[in-house]
Amino acid sequence: MSYRAPVRDIRFSLEEIAALDSVRATGAFPEFSGDLTGAILEEAAKLCNDVIAPLNWPSDQQGCTLKDGEVKTPDGFPEAYAKFVEGGWQGLQFGTEHGGMGLPRALGCALMEMLQSASMSFGLGPMLSFGAIEALIAHGSDEQRTLYLPKIISGEWSATMNLTEPQAGSDVGALRTKAEPNADGSWAVSGQKIYITWGEHDCAENIIHLVLARTPDSPAGTKGISLFLVPKFLPDENGNPGKRNGVKAIGLEHKMGIHGSPTCTMEYAGATGWLIGEENRGMAAMFTMMNSARLNVGVQGVGIAERAYQQAFEFAKERRQGRAPGGEGPAPHAIIDHPDVRRTLGLMKAKIEAARAICFHAAVEGDLAEHHGDEKEAAWSRRREELLIPVAKAWSTDLGVEIASLGVQIHGGMGFIEETGAAQHYRDARIAPIYEGTNGIQAIDLSGRKLSMEGGLAFAELIEDIRQTVEDCETSSNPALPELAARLKPAADALEEATGWMISAGMEDRLAGSTAFLKLTGEVTGGWLLCVGAVAAQRRLKEAEGDAAFSENRIALAGIYAETVLAAAPGLLGEIRMGAAPLFEPGLAMLESA
Amino acid sequence: MSYRAPVRDIRFSLEEIAALDSVRATGAFPEFSGDLTGAILEEAAKLCNDVIAPLNWPSDQQGCTLKDGEVKTPDGFPEAYAKFVEGGWQGLQFGTEHGGMGLPRALGCALMEMLQSASMSFGLGPMLSFGAIEALIAHGSDEQRTLYLPKIISGEWSATMNLTEPQAGSDVGALRTKAEPNADGSWAVSGQKIYITWGEHDCAENIIHLVLARTPDSPAGTKGISLFLVPKFLPDENGNPGKRNGVKAIGLEHKMGIHGSPTCTMEYAGATGWLIGEENRGMAAMFTMMNSARLNVGVQGVGIAERAYQQAFEFAKERRQGRAPGGEGPAPHAIIDHPDVRRTLGLMKAKIEAARAICFHAAVEGDLAEHHGDEKEAAWSRRREELLIPVAKAWSTDLGVEIASLGVQIHGGMGFIEETGAAQHYRDARIAPIYEGTNGIQAIDLSGRKLSMEGGLAFAELIEDIRQTVEDCETSSNPALPELAARLKPAADALEEATGWMISAGMEDRLAGSTAFLKLTGEVTGGWLLCVGAVAAQRRLKEAEGDAAFSENRIALAGIYAETVLAAAPGLLGEIRMGAAPLFEPGLAMLESA
Repeated sequence: MSYRAPVRDIRFSLEEIAALDSVRATGAFPEFSGDLTGAILEEAAKLCNDVIAPLNWPSDQQGCTLKDGEVKTPDGFPEAYAKFVEGGWQGLQFGTEHGGMGLPRALGCALMEMLQSASMSFGLGPMLSFGAIEALIAHGSDEQRTLYLPKIISGEWSATMNLTEPQAGSDVGALRTKAEPNADGSWAVSGQKIYITWGEHDCAENIIHLVLARTPDSPAGTKGISLFLVPKFLPDENGNPGKRNGVKAIGLEHKMGIHGSPTCTMEYAGATGWLIGEENRGMAAMFTMMNSARLNVGVQGVGIAERAYQQAFEFAKERRQGRAPGGEGPAPHAIIDHPDVRRTLGLMKAKIEAARAICFHAAVEGDLAEHHGDEKEAAWSRRREELLIPVAKAWSTDLGVEIASLGVQIHGGMGFIEETGAAQHYRDARIAPIYEGTNGIQAIDLSGRKLSMEGGLAFAELIEDIRQTVEDCETSSNPALPELAARLKPAADALEEATGWMISAGMEDRLAGSTAFLKLTGEVTGGWLLCVGAVAAQRRLKEAEGDAAFSENRIALAGIYAETVLAAAPGLLGEIRMGAAPLFEPGLAMLESA
Repeated sequence: MSYRAPVRDIRFSLEEIAALDSVRATGAFPEFSGDLTGAILEEAAKLCNDVIAPLNWPSDQQGCTLKDGEVKTPDGFPEAYAKFVEGGWQGLQFGTEHGGMGLPRALGCALMEMLQSASMSFGLGPMLSFGAIEALIAHGSDEQRTLYLPKIISGEWSATMNLTEPQAGSDVGALRTKAEPNADGSWAVSGQKIYITWGEHDCAENIIHLVLARTPDSPAGTKGISLFLVPKFLPDENGNPGKRNGVKAIGLEHKMGIHGSPTCTMEYAGATGWLIGEENRGMAAMFTMMNSARLNVGVQGVGIAERAYQQAFEFAKERRQGRAPGGEGPAPHAIIDHPDVRRTLGLMKAKIEAARAICFHAAVEGDLAEHHGDEKEAAWSRRREELLIPVAKAWSTDLGVEIASLGVQIHGGMGFIEETGAAQHYRDARIAPIYEGTNGIQAIDLSGRKLSMEGGLAFAELIEDIRQTVEDCETSSNPALPELAARLKPAADALEEATGWMISAGMEDRLAGSTAFLKLTGEVTGGWLLCVGAVAAQRRLKEAEGDAAFSENRIALAGIYAETVLAAAPGLLGEIRMGAAPLFEPGLAMLESA
């Protein structure tokens, strides 16, 4: 059940597919050399491999406990968190002016993947703080930033996001938590929030809650929501944790997975808070947090898939059963030599690389959107990032579930036994398609706002890029690459056809086809990026750069993805274009079992 | 979390799709009228709805305990089992000469679905006894049948299958349990068996273990395996439980799901057993058990999918979030009115009906193979049954996992909370693709032995049947049916193409494509059977027979399946024809994460 961070896979994806050099070229990160990248990734890998990963299974078995409003996290979490703080990891991608390392968010994304592979439950704490930091940087007052950012960025204090209430899940606008003005400019926040990840814990000395609430006489729906900062302990005059605030955890959820992550019901009883940004503009601030969080949840899908894959791969090498047609030595042969098991593993790995590339591509474009000197280029990057975020979130987390399920399957009967550990990944993975906007919500975002941006420009640009890669593959001297092109081209055609259909479709039809449209976008984009990697690998081979076996492997992985996933992708057009009519016709009025 | 057995759905599938009348026409079941079918199904539904289903969630939470070799099943299981015995349900499909009801196995299949929906953990007990009964009928001596069958068929005694050992999972031939002859003609069985479902429990007064073991000097591998009957209590001279035999449960597995089903490690310490059938012919007897068990596990996939679906459907009607484009009344609207949720539910239901139809079709053909007076017709039915069993097992159980996962998703955050109950289905469903031959083993069976039977005759016959239905749909007066044909025809073409490719492919290539080939077979066969149902529904509409809304619903469900699953099915050809070479080429030597 050990985990080794796949540093070389991650670097290849960052450098050769997501083009991390383009971030270096902005000049915004003068000290961010390739050597530093390698050093940082290796250092992060050590923490994740040696300190956090071993806690994953015991923390699942032990879970969290709540007593008198205080949560005890699993054994080892506080110590591991202390090492995380000691390394300064929480500040990796934040400015040196607040005490961060000042590195690109793409690198933060790579760290996040390793953290999530090591332990989803543990990784959720830092993930939530990441989002809150971004919201404070973008929307906090100078005073708030000065008081809170250094502490959260150092990791001494952690942070949470408080959106959900029982009646307000996907429908955030239905929330009822209230904030009433105090005489001193602060607010009194009252209400109950549910599903608050790391809402209370024993790893940090203070917890800063970002809470969505309504001010008196605010408009109904999302237009009347404001964002408040509510610390567990009010900072004293020296900025240290002072008086206990009127917020506490009153319940812990009994969940299927991520048992080491305390999911709290939080009660705000006139807790003192401060408005972040303007009144009634809480949704904008929330979207800042959510963009970061959605990408990170996508990365979590990659992380849990990678962990499940590593475990299944190790098992398949050790477990011997039956006679494999090409098996070496006397039977029984390792099950990895059985073609069906090998196909399963190869496809798992290829899909993980595809999802990883989508996430890193989104992260790099996010960095470029922020730092590129050329306004037009920055706008292009912003569009690409915005298009990719719902795909990264939904496609990668669905993949996390699929890969974790295959991981159980490869273990056979042992996969169903909890002590093996494969089952934990299957249970843990299942939350990711749900939170941070269900994958259905992501599909609506993609086929609605993201598709409509500037008349479909973001998709047109994506398809143009894919066609460029088709050409690159077609003209390669390595015959494996034109074979990739032969699969990528019809997939790109299908995506273009789907895009055209969706743009001209009515709202209900778009919504009915949205999930299949997102799936197609993910499958084609993932395949495209694997082909980009294959082109880069071929260049490396030609220039005798790096490990040839590794480069050949990148081409082979793209090949099996192309022959399976890309070959099947155009088949999604039926579901995309089905439209809403068949769903609402009288024949389907009867959906109950009879 | 309640369950209502879908008696009308089941009857439609049995009568109109699987053609249960053809079983009646054999004359082997003179009293088996349509009225009796309805009455039996309604009676079974009562037991499952009112007695067993309410135990499902509490039994998951409570689990089983082992103390001094004795297992305590969850509260309520012994009482529910007593009612199951009282109703004579264990004997539904077995001959009246042994005290059974003497009804077709297709009806046993329908009962099994309801039992599994009500509680997979509970249903496993009777399922294991079913398989053992079939093995004893086919291979037991007269004495064994006389002594054991009435007790097992009545349910007073239960039965188990003991195959797996730590080193012998999919590779049954690697087992090491020994049987040595005693002087009195019995055998002394010694060894350890793992993953023994209902291996020990407190519901029946005796447990009859069917155990695979090796006799002295037996050949290696599967050719040296014999089947033994080893009772927990040796029958006394009156056939009542007498002396305790040398077999006991020494461990209970800590599993991800089916917590109410005791999965035991059994120790045989020179336990007294009797040979069933001939020495070294245990595999043949085991295949008798396994054919029955594989179909029943497929039915279990349908059962858990149906249960998960019902829960998701009820939730989607109640839960209100946001504004649906066509929603009635003021927002928030029920989430079932949101197109993406409605599409999800519609597809879940359509796929469940497809899997149910595959299972019932297999069961009806099994009845015909046994009872049809015409030898040629019986042989046709046997081929169809044999083709369908791996498909029923693997496709339906993969579907069980998929539907249970979607069921969690529809619940949003609540789906991940154990108290909601959706998570239990997701955990429980995961075992079914593993046991009774992993789904990979099923794919090997389908693309190996089943495809090769008489030069591919079974597939040729299947494709011929599908083409007949294409024609029936094309010529229908209802314009919805030619639309079905337009999707079914290319899917049938793809299946034919795949079949031809697989037959002429080398062994390794076949194996590499086997899982995708099984998937294609399942998707096309399921779609075909939904179209058969649509043709029948159209006839009912025309003849004003039955509930028109129900008939229209069958056509609508076939429609959304055709536009989504059938439309995408030909896309599997890429994976089927990929072959083994890309999996074993040097580039894929590196499957480890790096």
